Amino acid sequence: MSGTDIDADPGTVYLVGSGPGDPELLTVKAKRLLEASDVILHDKLPGPEIIETLPEDRREDVGKRAGGERTPQSEINERLVELAREGKSVVRLKGGDSFVFGRGGEEAEYLAAHEVPFEVVPAVTSAIAAPAVAGIPVTHRDHASSVSFVTGHEDPTKEESAVDWEALAATGGTIVVLMGVGRLPDYTTALLEAGMAAETPVALVERGTWPGQRVATGTLETIVDARDEADISPPAVTVIGDVAGTRESVVDFLQNDYGATVDETAQSGE
Amino acid sequence: MSGTDIDADPGTVYLVGSGPGDPELLTVKAKRLLEASDVILHDKLPGPEIIETLPEDRREDVGKRAGGERTPQSEINERLVELAREGKSVVRLKGGDSFVFGRGGEEAEYLAAHEVPFEVVPAVTSAIAAPAVAGIPVTHRDHASSVSFVTGHEDPTKEESAVDWEALAATGGTIVVLMGVGRLPDYTTALLEAGMAAETPVALVERGTWPGQRVATGTLETIVDARDEADISPPAVTVIGDVAGTRESVVDFLQNDYGATVDETAQSGE
Repeated sequence: MSGTDIDADPGTVYLVGSGPGDPELLTVKAKRLLEASDVILHDKLPGPEIIETLPEDRREDVGKRAGGERTPQSEINERLVELAREGKSVVRLKGGDSFVFGRGGEEAEYLAAHEVPFEVVPAVTSAIAAPAVAGIPVTHRDHASSVSFVTGHEDPTKEESAVDWEALAATGGTIVVLMGVGRLPDYTTALLEAGMAAETPVALVERGTWPGQRVATGTLETIVDARDEADISPPAVTVIGDVAGTRESVVDFLQNDYGATVDETAQSGE
Repeated sequence: MSGTDIDADPGTVYLVGSGPGDPELLTVKAKRLLEASDVILHDKLPGPEIIETLPEDRREDVGKRAGGERTPQSEINERLVELAREGKSVVRLKGGDSFVFGRGGEEAEYLAAHEVPFEVVPAVTSAIAAPAVAGIPVTHRDHASSVSFVTGHEDPTKEESAVDWEALAATGGTIVVLMGVGRLPDYTTALLEAGMAAETPVALVERGTWPGQRVATGTLETIVDARDEADISPPAVTVIGDVAGTRESVVDFLQNDYGATVDETAQSGE
């Protein structure tokens, strides 16, 4: 392996994605940096199996605080700079990939503005992996020439949805919504109003690659009921498009490691 | 780690993505399966650094054949079934992620139709990783609420482009084109005609995470010239959208492992 650090560099911040949650889906590099770094700043999103491998004496939880509210991003940014200036090697560990709805871009800009060297360590994104382990490819020559990722959990300071569901429907490609369990009725309605077919297959993958992963399937018209019947809760990924229908033809031979109770509901709509 | 295989199961096919090319960006699981499996079927897309780690006596190159033409997908599918039926543990290794323009979906369907058990091992996709290591987050709270992935290298049997560039432009999100160096003039023109601003930032990342990675930047109007001046060749990823402009503000503090000759051209357009 050319050009590879043996250890983590002092005074450097590593923006590391944890992947979807299965510790075996960490990259080799993420694993090395988690072992070699002086401090790890994380929240709960990497999932229970990865969090429990982090050494107590080298980790700082910067997710929810005692009162229950979220640690402001500005405070996390300042802490990263502070630790790096102390000469520490610092891992900022995010669930999924830091640069896919993970604020990694903002952290990179803050670090550069404060002259702190940093490295980006890309990861397996849940947007692709959660559907994949449920037997759903986000693209397919016969079904989808493009795939779009959006978040169902937008910045609450935005006055209206910045996501143009009509344009997304018009692409004809797969749509994957991250963190979109709660607002499922809003965007399925928006897509129906944009002219997407009511029978378009939809799948919800809850806790993809975590122990106890679950899947619910339906159509654009039936998926809200399927969600309610199966009691699908966050974290979950929503896949909208013909590819979601391919699961049915492969699931009997799909070997998953995740001890999944696969929860199939209402593919046909009743 | 719950539910993890220690080895590779006999008679099973593992559809494994290699990630973007840096061997350290393999997942822990991919690395284990490459070590433990009986046979590895691969082509050249995982990149030179990963290919050279594969054991000669356990690998089969199913990419280009002696005559130079590509091995038909049907032949690869049949070979996977044949090896599994011999009781082998088989890794089908693809560049990037098997389920993102990688035909993993077709292979899964063929295996299931032939009653061969299989597992999907998701990977780091070049679509996110190549921009990331060049300092470009594909989403950003200030710049992009969605990201769409398309391929510039479509199925040649399709009569016309299945990609709706006008709809993609209308999403207002980032557009990432995989394998899109050759057809760059076609789709930049299509996006301009669809009303996307001429000054929209665009970046090309050649051989992202490979040794000698290179980056060229410009705008929707200037990127074809920038490509020609820098002589950017496949494999490369194209990033279109405001996020491509964030690279400039972070690149001085971005530590890359890839011994990159960063090739900056014509951000301002001259």
